[in-house]
Amino acid sequence: MSKVKFILDESKIPKDWYNIIPDLPFPLPPVYHPVTLQPVKPEDLAPIFPVELIKQEVSTERYIEIPEEVRKIYKLWRPTPLYRALNLEKYLDTPAHIYYKYEGVSPPGSHKPNTAVAQAFYNKLEGVKRLTTETGAGQWGSALAMACNFFGLECKVYMVKVSYYQKPYRRSLMEIWGAKVVPSPSPDTESGRRILEQDPDSPGSLGVAISEAVEDAVKRDDTKYSLGSVLNHVLLHQTVIGEEALLQMEIAGEFPDVVIGCVGGGSNFAGISFPFIREKFKGKKIRIIAVEPESCPSLTKGVYTYDYGDVAKMTPLLKMYTLGHNFIPPAIHAGGLRYHGMAPLVSALYHHGYIEAVAYPQTKVFEAGVIFAKTEGIVPAPESTHAIRAVIDEALDAKEKGEKKVILFNLSGHGFFDLSAYDQYLSGKLEDYFYPKDKVEEALKELPKI
Amino acid sequence: MSKVKFILDESKIPKDWYNIIPDLPFPLPPVYHPVTLQPVKPEDLAPIFPVELIKQEVSTERYIEIPEEVRKIYKLWRPTPLYRALNLEKYLDTPAHIYYKYEGVSPPGSHKPNTAVAQAFYNKLEGVKRLTTETGAGQWGSALAMACNFFGLECKVYMVKVSYYQKPYRRSLMEIWGAKVVPSPSPDTESGRRILEQDPDSPGSLGVAISEAVEDAVKRDDTKYSLGSVLNHVLLHQTVIGEEALLQMEIAGEFPDVVIGCVGGGSNFAGISFPFIREKFKGKKIRIIAVEPESCPSLTKGVYTYDYGDVAKMTPLLKMYTLGHNFIPPAIHAGGLRYHGMAPLVSALYHHGYIEAVAYPQTKVFEAGVIFAKTEGIVPAPESTHAIRAVIDEALDAKEKGEKKVILFNLSGHGFFDLSAYDQYLSGKLEDYFYPKDKVEEALKELPKI
Repeated sequence: MSKVKFILDESKIPKDWYNIIPDLPFPLPPVYHPVTLQPVKPEDLAPIFPVELIKQEVSTERYIEIPEEVRKIYKLWRPTPLYRALNLEKYLDTPAHIYYKYEGVSPPGSHKPNTAVAQAFYNKLEGVKRLTTETGAGQWGSALAMACNFFGLECKVYMVKVSYYQKPYRRSLMEIWGAKVVPSPSPDTESGRRILEQDPDSPGSLGVAISEAVEDAVKRDDTKYSLGSVLNHVLLHQTVIGEEALLQMEIAGEFPDVVIGCVGGGSNFAGISFPFIREKFKGKKIRIIAVEPESCPSLTKGVYTYDYGDVAKMTPLLKMYTLGHNFIPPAIHAGGLRYHGMAPLVSALYHHGYIEAVAYPQTKVFEAGVIFAKTEGIVPAPESTHAIRAVIDEALDAKEKGEKKVILFNLSGHGFFDLSAYDQYLSGKLEDYFYPKDKVEEALKELPKI
Repeated sequence: MSKVKFILDESKIPKDWYNIIPDLPFPLPPVYHPVTLQPVKPEDLAPIFPVELIKQEVSTERYIEIPEEVRKIYKLWRPTPLYRALNLEKYLDTPAHIYYKYEGVSPPGSHKPNTAVAQAFYNKLEGVKRLTTETGAGQWGSALAMACNFFGLECKVYMVKVSYYQKPYRRSLMEIWGAKVVPSPSPDTESGRRILEQDPDSPGSLGVAISEAVEDAVKRDDTKYSLGSVLNHVLLHQTVIGEEALLQMEIAGEFPDVVIGCVGGGSNFAGISFPFIREKFKGKKIRIIAVEPESCPSLTKGVYTYDYGDVAKMTPLLKMYTLGHNFIPPAIHAGGLRYHGMAPLVSALYHHGYIEAVAYPQTKVFEAGVIFAKTEGIVPAPESTHAIRAVIDEALDAKEKGEKKVILFNLSGHGFFDLSAYDQYLSGKLEDYFYPKDKVEEALKELPKI
């Protein structure tokens, strides 16, 4: 019988995170201050991030040691398993070999705690008592809640109000781990109060929640802010995924021809792909594909330019693929992919032609999700189904061409908190939102001039 | 650093299930036919179960080979990890070593697919096209839905109506895997129609759902019925849990002084404990503890006698600890433990003093569940929190006595579908239902005379 699972002993949890920056064959554009429009200095970030994370954000060291305290917590779910999707291959009748790295085994059910635990650790180390963050659907918020709990930090999560009421389960999860969760806009911050005065029934948005979380952190000496994607240090922490996958593919005796991940802010995609891009820089032939929603197509339809990370223009200006910071993506179920921008590192790699990108509408990705659940058992998160759709299409292409092809993808999380979306899909009620050209063109008019 | 996870390669998935019957130091009481009151003959069961499962039900072979096709599907989640709960030990400041076997890594999130896959396989082998079953909260129904999907069998699940509407997520999960799920009582069976005529708004019960599923199976030649606990063959299939745990404890270099599992019908408890009871029969000193809800205390407050497995008196008469087949347990959140009876094998072992039993009210078990989530990360299913409560009390007892004690328990599933119950607990709204003495005494008056 062929092997299905490639597991690693916990002694094989990577000892270092891989920092791709020194290996880039092009310079990474600087980051600008949102007010002065001058390049950001590390000390500008000190009110919101601890020193060690700011250092990592700009580090040119290729490997950054993972602290023992972080590796100890990683042991609760890492190394995550690598699977060969034999049933899916059989169903597709493809000569392709399909492998997936499964990050849904972490307690909150996604890859997010890989960075949450690291961020909580460095904050604790520097005497921070309390972290704030925003969350939409709740994947990130629950990961940070668990991480803060392990290090005895208070955690306050500003949860987009509409999700707070529609997705009470993720909120409960955060509360079990001891986090304080409030619906955003909240009366707890000036930004929140300002919006509530204008519209007491405001459903909130990620942009507003970010403003609240940052304001909270800036105003209190004992508090810092934590972000779940986009920034270099966040992507750095996720590289444990790809480093483990490299070892596991070696055990499987194959090397991928294609590596695939879904992209929202870019963190799970970077996690699986950066260690393979390192091999590509060294000369390995390998394609890397980022998969995004057709309704929020930053890479495939966005512009590579400087933009704000948030609606309130509080974040530094990042050079990235963007649909405009005022663009509000349609309410697709893959909440984790509803972001107007893209991680600067992922953006630069795409701009310079080291990675490809493809976009799908949501009915096509849910179709892939159901095929995956029926063949491999695991019900994937809506975000992850984007990657699966591209994997299936690559495998069918291999079948058509009669090519053996080795495909690896990141199954970033499970779909247990998204079953109502599957319900809508199965009952034929799931709507597709195609590329909202007019809204994007409108939003792109408001790009900062730099 | 101490080791946290003890993992096994998939080649170590047990090759045999362990049948405890030939090792019992006492005879197992016969099973009686519900109508003739004569001992049940294998052929009496043929309309509802395939021949191979009936053989397993009465087998006196110590080991029964696990078919390759079943082991192949087991590979999707087995061997499950064994964890050392170092964080929990530290939190309790106990000299005890605490280990847990985690069955929540299966795609439906519990131990149930260990038998669901085996049952679907044997039915498929004998040409059955369709399986029926009942489900309450949905753990069992979703496991069977997945198993049927893998073998191309149709699956019809009669889901207790109140759960069907209150727990739509488990229903969606079954539907993703292709099962047909109807709220019970349904208009699809005579038993269902009879109840709907009397009360169109009947909330349903597990007893009614069993009657519907059995009737459906008996009436159609292409259909058989599948049960998720209680019977010998179901417990047999779960012994993979304990067999793996034995190997993993060996790697950990310890042997448990105490093995703990929660009990409803008895299947996860049997799964973890029977292989250790085999060692006990051989002379090993080991305590085995079954943990049940105080509101449904079959072992600690029930009577060891013959009773029906269901309210409708359609099942054979089993000698077991029972609270009376008419006893409807209070609506505690651990739906999987709301059963009036107990597996005959577990009952006999308790009666003869080979295992102990303890009962807890639900606020005490949710308290344990939150402690576990905060120390070990994983949010346990309400059923599993019963085991955790007993583990914590054993560990605190070891602390008081300054005893080193090795404790092993089965973490039978995760609590992602039960977060509203945690929400109630955290907000102080969770009610306790203590032992309902009057209702049990009433129900015990209606025991069959045999």
